[in-house]
Amino acid sequence: MTAPFSTLDGFRAVLRALPAADAAATAAAEERNAQLTKPPGALGRLEMLAIWYAGWRGTGRPRLDHPQIIVFAGNHGVAARGVSAFPAEVTAQMVANFRAGGAAINQLAKAFGARLDVHALELDRPTADFTAAPAMTEAEVVAALAVGWQAVDAATDLLVVGEMGIANTTSAAAIAAALFGGAAGDWTGRGSGVDDKGVALKARIVADGIARHAAVLADPLMVLACLGGREIAAMAGAIAAAHAARIPVILDGFICTAAAAVLERAAPGALDHAVAGHVSAEGAHAALLARLGKEPLLSLGLRLGEGSGAALAIGVLKGAIACHSGMATFAEAGVAEG
Amino acid sequence: MTAPFSTLDGFRAVLRALPAADAAATAAAEERNAQLTKPPGALGRLEMLAIWYAGWRGTGRPRLDHPQIIVFAGNHGVAARGVSAFPAEVTAQMVANFRAGGAAINQLAKAFGARLDVHALELDRPTADFTAAPAMTEAEVVAALAVGWQAVDAATDLLVVGEMGIANTTSAAAIAAALFGGAAGDWTGRGSGVDDKGVALKARIVADGIARHAAVLADPLMVLACLGGREIAAMAGAIAAAHAARIPVILDGFICTAAAAVLERAAPGALDHAVAGHVSAEGAHAALLARLGKEPLLSLGLRLGEGSGAALAIGVLKGAIACHSGMATFAEAGVAEG
Repeated sequence: MTAPFSTLDGFRAVLRALPAADAAATAAAEERNAQLTKPPGALGRLEMLAIWYAGWRGTGRPRLDHPQIIVFAGNHGVAARGVSAFPAEVTAQMVANFRAGGAAINQLAKAFGARLDVHALELDRPTADFTAAPAMTEAEVVAALAVGWQAVDAATDLLVVGEMGIANTTSAAAIAAALFGGAAGDWTGRGSGVDDKGVALKARIVADGIARHAAVLADPLMVLACLGGREIAAMAGAIAAAHAARIPVILDGFICTAAAAVLERAAPGALDHAVAGHVSAEGAHAALLARLGKEPLLSLGLRLGEGSGAALAIGVLKGAIACHSGMATFAEAGVAEG
Repeated sequence: MTAPFSTLDGFRAVLRALPAADAAATAAAEERNAQLTKPPGALGRLEMLAIWYAGWRGTGRPRLDHPQIIVFAGNHGVAARGVSAFPAEVTAQMVANFRAGGAAINQLAKAFGARLDVHALELDRPTADFTAAPAMTEAEVVAALAVGWQAVDAATDLLVVGEMGIANTTSAAAIAAALFGGAAGDWTGRGSGVDDKGVALKARIVADGIARHAAVLADPLMVLACLGGREIAAMAGAIAAAHAARIPVILDGFICTAAAAVLERAAPGALDHAVAGHVSAEGAHAALLARLGKEPLLSLGLRLGEGSGAALAIGVLKGAIACHSGMATFAEAGVAEG
């Protein structure tokens, strides 16, 4: 999809104009749900999921046939500070692995019938170390938002965005702390596997970043620019594009949720088209989801990123929609309603 | 598969001789898991699931291509006591709905690529009201166990069993209370939707059934005969057959878990080949899973039966195995191990 903005203010205007779900389709889905051959409410959250999805797709009896997964990759200046268990070279190595089909997200995309796209954003030009300067200039963050927006296929009927970027849990922790307050240490965790000393270092760096940019952090889009990363901005751009096109989104882990939170803080309601696919093992993810009022579909201790937890949740959503749109009604099946 | 028993003692002997997982395959899967392109442990429970599955399938790099779902249906004498929100006729009506493809389980089977079989067990001959007599004679319970055993396709690589039987949460509550003790009211819930008065009635009937058969309830297979139902015995038979053939099982809700619990109490380890697909909204399911030491994969408020929650969890297991068997190793992908 073509990005309808070329400045941060332009993106702001786009966020303010995002559409709501289709109320008539939601009502039609609720009516259909009440007639299906099962006790009322017996499919639990699957029923609410199907009705939510129907509203965004604009039909009371929707299908889910063309999910799209997009993995964005970026490199971070703060990686040089030793905040990750892995060297920064791994970002590019994993992008090659995605392209060769060898990563977890490749297998999950295949298992759930999703198209997988990979966008590497200027890996040889990391963002600035956010303790020393804004991670991105306005032009850089707008460009990354646009990469995300343009990566969304308008013909898809479900979007998952994932990421790869050594040091990006540090960036996500800084974003969360800037958006929601609290101590830096409340939002920092082990990432891909740092020890207690590493977690303490991450917390110090997050606190330094927030202190450095304090003057502009009341603006969520400046939070993204100052503390984010290109892959994080691209995820935000893609999630916003999906909303504009009424394409439902399944959120992934901590980093994806931090990207999404920027949108919700910039324009409340911006995530109404999104559900939380899972709660990850990264310490602060549960707290971040709670701030957004999103209850995760899965809780399986994942902490990989790449969109992996959200991809797994595609199966849950597929099951929900298959039941909703495929089941017989009591009248069709000649079953007594009790 | 041909049932290798024709008496309850014969079935007992079969349970005592059930095989263990393949230790060499488990070790090979653990070794492979440690080499895959992800931080150690980053796929959380998916890693443990894949290793468990590998052990039962006897290979360090397994596939999951041919899941089988079997729905067993039976009618219960206690239904006449008014313990369900639906009339007993609904059992047969829902069997017709399964056969016509209109129920939730039909849609879920299709969504997850599973074969679906439906076995209705003598619907026009309900079990005896267990407050007045044993629900089944020994010959009847052995016949139902054999129906379950024979329904399992030896060529399948994953089994889900589900049920349909008006009043069968009352039967399952009685089984759970008899196996694990506690007050009848601890194990009774709303089933398909009874009110507080209905729940109180169910608890009284469960207590009456346990009092009536107290003399023989130390024997888990007599618990099944006295308080169970044909579809519950058939599920137990199918789960045992799967164990004998080293076919992993995903357990469904409260009634399926009660059937499975009979096996575990009769022969500890009988459920080592089984994982809990979900925890349902039926009040006592979580407690029953805890007694069996099974942590559910999903918690989505389902309370439908039919195998629906377990069918949904097929997606999680498919994702786990796809990652385990499809991902590249660090060496293959040229990714640094951190």
